[in-house]
Amino acid sequence: MRAAVMRAKQIVVDEIPDPIPAAGQVLVRTLACGICGSDLHALKHGEEMVALGDEGAGLLPEEMRPETMDLSRDVVMGHEFCAEVIELGENTGNCAVGDTVVSMPMAFGPTGIHPIGYSNILPGGYGELMVLSDMMCLKVPNGLSSDHAALTEPMAVGLHAVNKSTITQRDAAVVLGCGPVGLAVIAALKLKGVETIIAADFSPRRRALAATMGAHEVVDPRDEPAMEAWRRVDGTKAVHIYEAVGVPGMIEAAMKDAPRSAQLLVVGVCMELDSFRPFRGIVKELTVRFALGYDPMEFGGTLQSIAEGQIDVVPLITSRVDIDGVPQAFDDLATPDDHCKILVTPS
Amino acid sequence: MRAAVMRAKQIVVDEIPDPIPAAGQVLVRTLACGICGSDLHALKHGEEMVALGDEGAGLLPEEMRPETMDLSRDVVMGHEFCAEVIELGENTGNCAVGDTVVSMPMAFGPTGIHPIGYSNILPGGYGELMVLSDMMCLKVPNGLSSDHAALTEPMAVGLHAVNKSTITQRDAAVVLGCGPVGLAVIAALKLKGVETIIAADFSPRRRALAATMGAHEVVDPRDEPAMEAWRRVDGTKAVHIYEAVGVPGMIEAAMKDAPRSAQLLVVGVCMELDSFRPFRGIVKELTVRFALGYDPMEFGGTLQSIAEGQIDVVPLITSRVDIDGVPQAFDDLATPDDHCKILVTPS
Repeated sequence: MRAAVMRAKQIVVDEIPDPIPAAGQVLVRTLACGICGSDLHALKHGEEMVALGDEGAGLLPEEMRPETMDLSRDVVMGHEFCAEVIELGENTGNCAVGDTVVSMPMAFGPTGIHPIGYSNILPGGYGELMVLSDMMCLKVPNGLSSDHAALTEPMAVGLHAVNKSTITQRDAAVVLGCGPVGLAVIAALKLKGVETIIAADFSPRRRALAATMGAHEVVDPRDEPAMEAWRRVDGTKAVHIYEAVGVPGMIEAAMKDAPRSAQLLVVGVCMELDSFRPFRGIVKELTVRFALGYDPMEFGGTLQSIAEGQIDVVPLITSRVDIDGVPQAFDDLATPDDHCKILVTPS
Repeated sequence: MRAAVMRAKQIVVDEIPDPIPAAGQVLVRTLACGICGSDLHALKHGEEMVALGDEGAGLLPEEMRPETMDLSRDVVMGHEFCAEVIELGENTGNCAVGDTVVSMPMAFGPTGIHPIGYSNILPGGYGELMVLSDMMCLKVPNGLSSDHAALTEPMAVGLHAVNKSTITQRDAAVVLGCGPVGLAVIAALKLKGVETIIAADFSPRRRALAATMGAHEVVDPRDEPAMEAWRRVDGTKAVHIYEAVGVPGMIEAAMKDAPRSAQLLVVGVCMELDSFRPFRGIVKELTVRFALGYDPMEFGGTLQSIAEGQIDVVPLITSRVDIDGVPQAFDDLATPDDHCKILVTPS
C-alpha cells in the first residue's frame, strides 16, 4: 500500500507491505485521518517522546505495557482516523464489512498492545490501510461524514481535559492557545454549559475559530493578556486556565498571571525542558493538573456529540491532502497560523 | 526592647523601641518563638520573596492587601510564637492581662494588615515584646507549656498541606524531606489515620524524628529512593507525594519517580528558578498542588491537637536560645541536619 512514512526524522511517501488482520482484528481502508501536533513533536523530539513515554509505561504491569516505537525503523503515524472495514480477521463479531468506523488508536493483537500511529508493527492513518481491534471499533452513526468522524479523537482530548479540570458551569475558563487542542477544549466547555469562556491566540484565523467554537471573548495577547480579559469580563468566578500551547515558558506565564487558588490544566504537550518558579504556585496556592488522551466513555461520547450536531467540527477542517501531500502538510503545519486541522484523505 | 533584627541581610541584636498597642491590639511578652526555614529564605532571598508575595497580594482588593516589607528598613522576624498578654489596648475584650496566647501571625491595626514577622511596623517573636490583634489571639489551654504552644504555627502548616492534598485513610503518603515542614506533614497524616506513611531524608537525626512522629517506613534516599520504598511496602494504594524539601530539582525528581495519576503536594518553599519537563506530568496525568499556610480553623485545631496530646511536639524542639543567640542559631540552621526546631525564649 501507499503510505507517508516517518523514516530517519523525515516524512517520505513509499510503498510498504499491506497490513494483515490477525485474530480479533479487522482490515480497514483509511477514509480520513487528521494530522496531529503530536506527530510534528514525534518527528522533531521522537527520542524524548519514547523515553518519557516508556517512563510512564514502565510503571504498568508488563502485560499492559504498549509496544515501544523504534525510531530507527519505519513508523506510519496517524491516530485521528475514520475508516471503512474491508476484511474481517478470525474471531471478530463487532464489525461487518462495509462499516464506517472510528477507534481509539490502540490495538490488541498476538504481539501485544500497539499504539496505532506510534507503532512499528501496525500502521496508522497516513497509509491506505490499517488493521484495528474489532472490539475497539465504534460504528459511525448514519449520515456523519468520515471527515467529520475523524475529528472524534482530537475533540475527545478537549473533553477529557475539561473533565479532568473539575470546572463547573458556575466557573470561568481561560483557554491559552487556539490550535486544535485549544479549540477542542473550547467546544467541550461550551457543551458543558460554561458561560464565561475567554480564549487567547496570536493568530487572527485561530481567534475567529475560537469564537465560532463557542468562546465568549477572544483576545490577541499582544493587545490584552488573557487574564486581564478575564478580569474585565468577569473576574469574580473561580477560574480554570487551560494551557493548550505546549511551548516552554507557558506554564510559568500562566502561573504568573493566575489569581489565587486558580486551577491550571496543562493539555498542550511540551516535550522540552521548561522552567518555573515554584514560589509563584505556593503564594497563590495554585493547582496544576496534566491531562493526556481520554477514556473510552469520553471517546464514544464525543463521537455521539459530533453526530448529533452538538459539536460542529466543520470549521476546524482547513484543508485536505492525499498521501502524497503529507510531507508538505507537515511543513505547512510548522507555521500553523493559517491552519487548524489538515485531513489526509488517501482515496 | 531587645530584639534580633534583620538589617542589611544580617541578623543583629539591638535595642529598638517598644511596640505600642493601638485600639484592638494587645501588648504581649514573647515566651517562645520558633525559627522557621522561611526566615532563612527571607534573609537570603528577601527581594524575590517580597516581589512574588506582592504578585500574590496584588490580586487582592486593596483594603485586604497586607503591608509590603521594606528590606532597607529593620524587620524583626519570628512568626511561630507563644506570648503572655501584659497590656490591653482600647476596644479589646478577648484577651485578659496574664493570658498565655498564640495567634496566626497577622495583625490588623490603624495602619492596615501586618504580617507579623515580615513587617517593618510590627515586630515578630525574635524580640521581647510584640503587639497582636486582640481578636486573633487564642488562649493556650491550661497546662500546655509555651514552648509547645509555639509549635502550633508550623504544625498547622502540615495539617493544611494534608487537607489540601485530599488524601484519605485508604491512600499512601510519601514525604520527601523531614525538616520541620515534613515532620508536621507526617504528624498530620498520622492524626488523619493514614496507614502507609513513607518518609525520606538524608539526615539520620531527621529520619529518627520522622519515625517518632509517625512514619511507618523511613529511608535514606541514597540507599533506597522513597518511591521504591513505597512500592516495596505497598505500591497499590493511590499515592500522595509531599515535597517538603524546597530546593530546585525536587519537583522534577518527584514527577520523574511518581506513578501514574499521583498527586504531588508542594509544601517546601523553593524561591529559586526551577526546571522540569511538562511531558513527565502529561504522560502520567499528575496533579501538582501548592500549599501555603493554613486557615483559622486549621490553626485553632492544631493548638487543640497539641494540647490534647494527639500531636507530640516535644521531640521536635532540638535546642533553645535567647535573643543574643539568634544570629548563631541562623548560622547553625544553614546546616540543618543536626537541628529540627530551635526555639527563641527571650526571658
